[in-house]
Amino acid sequence: MTQNPFAPGAKRPSVTEGVFSREEVALANRNSGALLETLGLEITPTGTHYLLNHFDVPVLDEAAHVLSFEGAFDAPFRLTMDEIRALPEMTRPVTLECAGNGRAGVSPRCFSMPWMYEAVGTSKWAGTPLAPLLERAQPRSGVQDFAFLGADFGFDKGQPHYFGRSLTPDQIADLDVMLVWGMNGQPLLPQHGAPLRIIVPGWYGMASVKWLTTITALTERYQGFQQVQTYRLRKNEDDPGTPVTTIRVKSLMKPPGVPDWVTRQRWLQAGRVTLEGRAWSGGGVPITKVEVRLGDTWQDAELTGRPDTYAWTGWRIDWDATPGVFDLACRATDANGNTQPLEAPFDMAGFANNSVHRVRVHVAEAAT
Amino acid sequence: MTQNPFAPGAKRPSVTEGVFSREEVALANRNSGALLETLGLEITPTGTHYLLNHFDVPVLDEAAHVLSFEGAFDAPFRLTMDEIRALPEMTRPVTLECAGNGRAGVSPRCFSMPWMYEAVGTSKWAGTPLAPLLERAQPRSGVQDFAFLGADFGFDKGQPHYFGRSLTPDQIADLDVMLVWGMNGQPLLPQHGAPLRIIVPGWYGMASVKWLTTITALTERYQGFQQVQTYRLRKNEDDPGTPVTTIRVKSLMKPPGVPDWVTRQRWLQAGRVTLEGRAWSGGGVPITKVEVRLGDTWQDAELTGRPDTYAWTGWRIDWDATPGVFDLACRATDANGNTQPLEAPFDMAGFANNSVHRVRVHVAEAAT
Repeated sequence: MTQNPFAPGAKRPSVTEGVFSREEVALANRNSGALLETLGLEITPTGTHYLLNHFDVPVLDEAAHVLSFEGAFDAPFRLTMDEIRALPEMTRPVTLECAGNGRAGVSPRCFSMPWMYEAVGTSKWAGTPLAPLLERAQPRSGVQDFAFLGADFGFDKGQPHYFGRSLTPDQIADLDVMLVWGMNGQPLLPQHGAPLRIIVPGWYGMASVKWLTTITALTERYQGFQQVQTYRLRKNEDDPGTPVTTIRVKSLMKPPGVPDWVTRQRWLQAGRVTLEGRAWSGGGVPITKVEVRLGDTWQDAELTGRPDTYAWTGWRIDWDATPGVFDLACRATDANGNTQPLEAPFDMAGFANNSVHRVRVHVAEAAT
Repeated sequence: MTQNPFAPGAKRPSVTEGVFSREEVALANRNSGALLETLGLEITPTGTHYLLNHFDVPVLDEAAHVLSFEGAFDAPFRLTMDEIRALPEMTRPVTLECAGNGRAGVSPRCFSMPWMYEAVGTSKWAGTPLAPLLERAQPRSGVQDFAFLGADFGFDKGQPHYFGRSLTPDQIADLDVMLVWGMNGQPLLPQHGAPLRIIVPGWYGMASVKWLTTITALTERYQGFQQVQTYRLRKNEDDPGTPVTTIRVKSLMKPPGVPDWVTRQRWLQAGRVTLEGRAWSGGGVPITKVEVRLGDTWQDAELTGRPDTYAWTGWRIDWDATPGVFDLACRATDANGNTQPLEAPFDMAGFANNSVHRVRVHVAEAAT
């Protein structure tokens, strides 16, 4: 580690295929994933929702916190947390997924958080719709972007910045963006953006800025690091790429049976077992089909519904398990006709890998 | 991965020094660590307390949950959660640390959860003292062990078992073991053992059995897998070893300045900076000294107190940072005269590595 990560133009550390470095494991230790065994639940238990925080979690004083509407507004204003909580309240279960989920399955891979399958979760977010507040601030006619700035600050590729993202006026009109202060019936936790964040339903998690301090109306496009220099789907170094936006269709299985502690492979006895899991897609698009690979064939699972337009859909299927070793898998299709690929799509930064979830299961003879 | 982890006598996967496997990263993704930037807080924010769960988290029905006192008791009984919550209530901040914390720094290392520094946390646990309940059940005179059994089940080294641990009557008499149903003013979360667990203050975390279903009085020593086949300090394959019990003296630093996203190295401007962190030892033994390496010399930090006998102690020290690259470190000493080593002590399973915490800091010229 002789490289200085704070030098302008600093590059990410290199990676070795097939193995992971100490720095990648350190990222995995601090950015926590969901527990797949809780996929039987519609709402992810508090404290097990995935966390991907670029910089340090700011511990903010809620009593002093202010949200500022700035820039090209005709009627800019500032709101305290008391004022924000007095606005019309709504609660909505929303499924969030990290854009980097599945990165460890992409080859060749890049240096970043090495997610396998677990950077996804569904919480009941409490807050207020954002659109009426933007309207109240009266954006000027030439506004091209609304920039959302967090209080979290650090370096990436040698560039210091607050985490910030933007949405265009057209995107705001299409999306049900929420200003959020609560989660699962409790105040927002520090690591999830307390006291205030946004939730951009249907998009990958990078859009849902935490520790929100400022919303700036811009008469040009926002050029923040996290908007233009990363979170782009790119096939090679020369590819300018396209922005990461809505979540790709995906599904996960609650691993059946019981685990081996270290390999997480599964063991169960022969006989009928009900497999279940969750499936989701971006932009509120419904799931129309989930197939499960039982042995050599894909079979349709039963869909058991979703609690909200932007939340995942439950699925289940019975399996008559016979002795042997199986690589079970699940594959979802959405109403736009998109189906999960069997192999990871390549992306330079390992973004948006929605290939199928595989679970190795050892089926033993039934006890007599 | 052709090995069958469910075969009797199955061995753990092998490891390669200096790099980590996909299976190790998968463990790191599900077993989450503390966020070191929250070390400025006395209580670890809910949802960021470290998690080390051997098997799947059981999602238990609190209304149906019963704790059974079984075995060599003259007056065994069963308690519902309502009955347990009606017992005398106490709340206590207790610092817990995973016995495997620091494993990734031990060389050669073994295959298990690759913790760096972050498997530690302090929560306010609410419950009732265990000792009066054991007394009420009237253990017979020949009792040698009380076995605590959880509802979590799985395999390790090919052996199926519920997670279980034991304490002797003498240990129970010495330790302030709590039966716990609450955490930080809320009901216990599923991943922390809901609806009921024990907390064994001053011991490494493996003793604090989650999802507690049964306390069995035994007239022989308990032979459960997690008691006799693991959680032993061993120097080589032939070493029968000694049990892992109380926590070794240790300290961590809240990393100063701001991070680089991927390497977690730190950046700050030259000038005075206050470094702070936490230090703890096992068995309620107080911390008497924390030294911090600033450049080439170790300097004594100020101790800022602890909220309870079994909770960590705060420390702070001012540093006049000059431009350059520094590997800061902190080192605690307890009232028994134990001091953290500079290098990781070797253990076959990577247990109880309490070597000093190092933080790489890049100090830039102060902005003018």
